[in-house]
Amino acid sequence: MTGNSILLAAVSVLSACQQSYFAFQVGRARLKYKVTPPAVTGSPDFERVFRAQQNCVEFYPVFLVAFWMAGWYFNEVFATFLGLVYIYARHQYFCGYSEAAKNRISGFRLSLGILAALTVLGSLGIANSFLDEYLDLNIAKKLKWHL
Amino acid sequence: MTGNSILLAAVSVLSACQQSYFAFQVGRARLKYKVTPPAVTGSPDFERVFRAQQNCVEFYPVFLVAFWMAGWYFNEVFATFLGLVYIYARHQYFCGYSEAAKNRISGFRLSLGILAALTVLGSLGIANSFLDEYLDLNIAKKLKWHL
Amino acid sequence: MTGNSILLAAVSVLSACQQSYFAFQVGRARLKYKVTPPAVTGSPDFERVFRAQQNCVEFYPVFLVAFWMAGWYFNEVFATFLGLVYIYARHQYFCGYSEAAKNRISGFRLSLGILAALTVLGSLGIANSFLDEYLDLNIAKKLKWHL
Repeated sequence: MTGNSILLAAVSVLSACQQSYFAFQVGRARLKYKVTPPAVTGSPDFERVFRAQQNCVEFYPVFLVAFWMAGWYFNEVFATFLGLVYIYARHQYFCGYSEAAKNRISGFRLSLGILAALTVLGSLGIANSFLDEYLDLNIAKKLKWHL
Repeated sequence: MTGNSILLAAVSVLSACQQSYFAFQVGRARLKYKVTPPAVTGSPDFERVFRAQQNCVEFYPVFLVAFWMAGWYFNEVFATFLGLVYIYARHQYFCGYSEAAKNRISGFRLSLGILAALTVLGSLGIANSFLDEYLDLNIAKKLKWHL
Repeated sequence: MTGNSILLAAVSVLSACQQSYFAFQVGRARLKYKVTPPAVTGSPDFERVFRAQQNCVEFYPVFLVAFWMAGWYFNEVFATFLGLVYIYARHQYFCGYSEAAKNRISGFRLSLGILAALTVLGSLGIANSFLDEYLDLNIAKKLKWHL
């Protein structure tokens, strides 16, 4: 783990604001398409906005885990960059899906790609820390030394 | 980041218990209003309980991020206090919404206010740490010195 | 908190992959039972898969909190073991529920048991750290000394 993870913290707060923004947009869509709580169906336009937000909610803890693990065990700056791209991808996905169901694809694919990258980087970092800690074998250092 | 974050940990475990309690109440409402899984519709009374829990689920990771960031980068005791008020607000929201759709408002507003406060405090703390770390400029210390 | 939490990180990344896998299975079920987004109803088979994933999503942040708190404040290796059993229980639950609604019970009970164990261990660890930090009273050490 690195020192104080400021960049990770900043991106996390930004992503939390984005989640709140999506929830707020669902509230606005409720008023616009006259869907009174607790109903979540009735207007296809509302359903798209709602489903877009739900999908973002589902993936949010997965993103947080992959993001912090990549930042702690691989590289903070690199994870921060990918985290910002993820936030952008989710924005694209949400806006696209709100317009039409087919417009959700490109943002969704980008967000999955970022998630996969963060997971792979986090796993590599954790594997390296594991070998270093339990088997006294630091591959990252050895690679640097050989190059 | 502060030393061992015991207070943050305690509030987090408490809030996790609350989330489990809400999920348990949905299970009880299923039995009471005879809504067999996987159905989530059929009785307006069940739908209110279910929607109340779903809303708490949606905001839970957002709360955790805002809460830990405020606790780590701003002030642990202050964040703990706000975290406890958030748990109370969510309790009020859940119980109110379970009774009638209009009773959800006051608890929901309080929970959003707390969330906004935690986010602002977390952002301030992160901004201060960022300036201190990368620009060697500690505003919090300077303010103390001038006052 | 322990040094670098590698085992906790590894289990977290694994559980995040499992969550993505569940989401992927919902996507496959959409194709198989011809449920076009944003709809989430229409086929009882799809609804079971969807509800199974939704339940895992609801409990995921609760699991993460209980798991990390138990790992940080009680014992990392023990929490890691329970975390792996939780992942197994969720797999059993998801596969069971996808087949038939009644097959969800055993996996669900196991996952709740693990969650309860993690919460109790986390609470004990936090209580001990709290007494140690604020009242200078280390019960764990005293117990060891007396035994």
